[in-house]
Amino acid sequence: MSHRFRDLLALEPLTADELTFLLDQSKPFQEIQKHPLKKLATLRGKTVALAFFETSTRTRISFGTAAARLGADTMNLQAEASSIKKGESLLDTVHTLNAMKPDCLVMRHAASGAADFVARHLDIPVINAGDGTHEHPSQGLLDALTIRDRKGKIDHLNVTILGDIQHSRVARSNIHLLGKFGCSITLCGPAMWVPRELEQIAPRALIRRVFRVEEALEGADVVMVLRVQTERLHEPALSANDYVLLYQLNGQRLQGAKTDAIVLHPGPMNRGIEISPEVADGGQSCVLDQVTNGIAVRMALLFLLGAGVGEQGTHPVSGAEQSRNRRVTDVKDSSHAAR
Amino acid sequence: MSHRFRDLLALEPLTADELTFLLDQSKPFQEIQKHPLKKLATLRGKTVALAFFETSTRTRISFGTAAARLGADTMNLQAEASSIKKGESLLDTVHTLNAMKPDCLVMRHAASGAADFVARHLDIPVINAGDGTHEHPSQGLLDALTIRDRKGKIDHLNVTILGDIQHSRVARSNIHLLGKFGCSITLCGPAMWVPRELEQIAPRALIRRVFRVEEALEGADVVMVLRVQTERLHEPALSANDYVLLYQLNGQRLQGAKTDAIVLHPGPMNRGIEISPEVADGGQSCVLDQVTNGIAVRMALLFLLGAGVGEQGTHPVSGAEQSRNRRVTDVKDSSHAAR
Amino acid sequence: MSHRFRDLLALEPLTADELTFLLDQSKPFQEIQKHPLKKLATLRGKTVALAFFETSTRTRISFGTAAARLGADTMNLQAEASSIKKGESLLDTVHTLNAMKPDCLVMRHAASGAADFVARHLDIPVINAGDGTHEHPSQGLLDALTIRDRKGKIDHLNVTILGDIQHSRVARSNIHLLGKFGCSITLCGPAMWVPRELEQIAPRALIRRVFRVEEALEGADVVMVLRVQTERLHEPALSANDYVLLYQLNGQRLQGAKTDAIVLHPGPMNRGIEISPEVADGGQSCVLDQVTNGIAVRMALLFLLGAGVGEQGTHPVSGAEQSRNRRVTDVKDSSHAAR
Repeated sequence: MSHRFRDLLALEPLTADELTFLLDQSKPFQEIQKHPLKKLATLRGKTVALAFFETSTRTRISFGTAAARLGADTMNLQAEASSIKKGESLLDTVHTLNAMKPDCLVMRHAASGAADFVARHLDIPVINAGDGTHEHPSQGLLDALTIRDRKGKIDHLNVTILGDIQHSRVARSNIHLLGKFGCSITLCGPAMWVPRELEQIAPRALIRRVFRVEEALEGADVVMVLRVQTERLHEPALSANDYVLLYQLNGQRLQGAKTDAIVLHPGPMNRGIEISPEVADGGQSCVLDQVTNGIAVRMALLFLLGAGVGEQGTHPVSGAEQSRNRRVTDVKDSSHAAR
Repeated sequence: MSHRFRDLLALEPLTADELTFLLDQSKPFQEIQKHPLKKLATLRGKTVALAFFETSTRTRISFGTAAARLGADTMNLQAEASSIKKGESLLDTVHTLNAMKPDCLVMRHAASGAADFVARHLDIPVINAGDGTHEHPSQGLLDALTIRDRKGKIDHLNVTILGDIQHSRVARSNIHLLGKFGCSITLCGPAMWVPRELEQIAPRALIRRVFRVEEALEGADVVMVLRVQTERLHEPALSANDYVLLYQLNGQRLQGAKTDAIVLHPGPMNRGIEISPEVADGGQSCVLDQVTNGIAVRMALLFLLGAGVGEQGTHPVSGAEQSRNRRVTDVKDSSHAAR
Repeated sequence: MSHRFRDLLALEPLTADELTFLLDQSKPFQEIQKHPLKKLATLRGKTVALAFFETSTRTRISFGTAAARLGADTMNLQAEASSIKKGESLLDTVHTLNAMKPDCLVMRHAASGAADFVARHLDIPVINAGDGTHEHPSQGLLDALTIRDRKGKIDHLNVTILGDIQHSRVARSNIHLLGKFGCSITLCGPAMWVPRELEQIAPRALIRRVFRVEEALEGADVVMVLRVQTERLHEPALSANDYVLLYQLNGQRLQGAKTDAIVLHPGPMNRGIEISPEVADGGQSCVLDQVTNGIAVRMALLFLLGAGVGEQGTHPVSGAEQSRNRRVTDVKDSSHAAR
């Protein structure tokens, strides 16, 4: 089986087969996180540009650490201190970065579609680290890896997503991915945050909207709790207190899900708002596994997309065994699956 | 002689013997600062997380440089751009960092006790890089190393500390350390900044309060000048002019100390406020030695605490000669001396 | 031929011979930017301090990437988070950095002469990355490298510089360099930004002032467009609209230059203000070459000045062939050509 990617802009265009491939590729990097020495020389001499036009801590550090553990150097552009403030266009900024010859660009931007737009203009691979309310594909992959590890599979699970789904790129990437694996997806939250259109975003996915959280949790294998932007909570529409009363995932409500249900949250958590401390810290919570898996998934992505890997042909971890995938990221022959 | 540390949270709980051990361990790293090539491979493949929840320049760069010179990679979290702003709890933030599998956490926080609190919840070593008005142990060690180098010993010296002692974590770490070595410590500054309780903070230390700077300097071997937070200087209690008149260490006043007295300042200095330029730049000033020694002390700490050194057993610099200390930081058997 | 530099503070004091030497030294580093693996071990174990007391994105990333590709570590000081805010003097800040034993200091500062002032007090090489309205020598060199590559020479070209020349350190460095090569330099812009004194800044250079852009472009081999600080554009003196009408380099105006004229811009560009998109993206534009050449020039500078290269004697790229230049940067014997 061979897959070719040039960029990772979204999970929507990928097949279940391709998604499985990416998850499989993450496994050896997951093992490395358990070693005392976690650094490889795979991308030694390569440079990963990290362009965050929107503030980020965990995703930026995660990609930066993934790059460092592969031996790559990083170029760090952060919006606050950048030429953006001086009125330079997005395209000029990324062309400038690109002229410094990085091997890969990881970017986050407040505008949906920004990564796609940039990728159409650059000759290096682009990884979308979050674009507006569109997608956050590496988060979708790390969530899927976490689910697969804990449930033994992804196929045909019941997944409930709680919160502000309308504004969540994490939810969108997850819905696209889970839909390809035949999961039944239940969306639950205040009606204004769970509009009817969401049922249509992944045509073949089984998506339903449920507005009572207890009903939404019935039979769930996986509960994904989204971060609430507290600035969106205010009277009279919805106060923080209302949100806690109506939608917070607490221990009692979680009992309505399957006994072995797991809980995910992309972080940072508002403890006591969308999730109760007992659930956040409980045995069903996978939030820290998600963070650890984030490094593994991003190492796999940087390895596959970021480094002209095709030239080398062997997997950095498993070596020759994986050489059948050698052309997986041949840029010249790329079918641009992710665009 | 073997000492085991897991964290370095404070100097207060350490014995003179343990402190001497840490200073001795810093010596070979001090030598390295004189080499044309200062980089070791000791911590190659290891990651040091630097979490600064309070603005810092010199301490952050010093730890970062120490990590780099040991071959380690760093994860940088700075409060300004962090999830803290998004309402995440301190513990969630450090648990998240920890889930990315660093080998050591260096942290600064505005709350006294923050590093201790975090260390109780993490399974990796924590180095306190300053917590509120509590302690700044690596600063205390680098000050002691500077004193020992210049005076040939630490024991039974007369040390005068000038300034806002009440709010100074640097002063506290120094008082604890110097007290263990039988130093006579004279605290001097405006009465509101030198409260009576300070005489009791290190039970067996010889501490006295003196409010006339000339009297405080009599017979001093070491003068430690603290940085004045100029925002704390205002009429009518105390103006900047008053401070200069009453407490500034200038050349004339310094003549009241022993002829070979040395002057320390943790930086950044307010020249012309707490210290006069002639003293700051004079032959008795050790301020730049302090900075250089800071790298050495922090390399030693990262080496001892940050990297599961026990597994390797030999000293990165002196090699096999020091292998008698091999279990010094065996995490599993740690007696948690520093907690 | 042997040249000795200790610092690079300005292009004004350098001879055409010395400038040619620096451009020649940049060539092998330019080649490296085309390799799949761009990293050398030349400065492995060395540390480059990057002290940016003024906000910068591209220059900071360019020097940082240049350092990383030579294998050096970096210390990063940025004004926003620095002790500067705490009232520390510039000299104390750089002395503190220096006490951490970097091998080279790259600095940017808002005050003209700041780098020169600092270099007089430090024992390590200083590279000026822009000081007020004085000079930005690495920009001047990368512009010259770009010109020489595209025109085959620098000597006796007609160069037109458009914009706010009065406030531009880029323009000053370029005027000094181009003057040494006998170029005819035409300065064009609003009269308030092109004062008569500029004709005198490079005594032997052929400098004229022209206020009609069409006239200024006649016969130009090279057109350098400067960035307009839009905060300097306002009614009634000069609005942004006026500037576009009178001085913007657009396609029609560019036709007045020689057919094979090239266009440079130091970035970041205000598209639609000082330069039209058709020119910025056209075949005569060299703006991205400039960025790529910036890495090469800065690698050469860090190699020559930043690393006690004299000790090693051979060129990192071309090896033994270049060993005739071995004493080029012998710090001890330095004649301080750049001061």
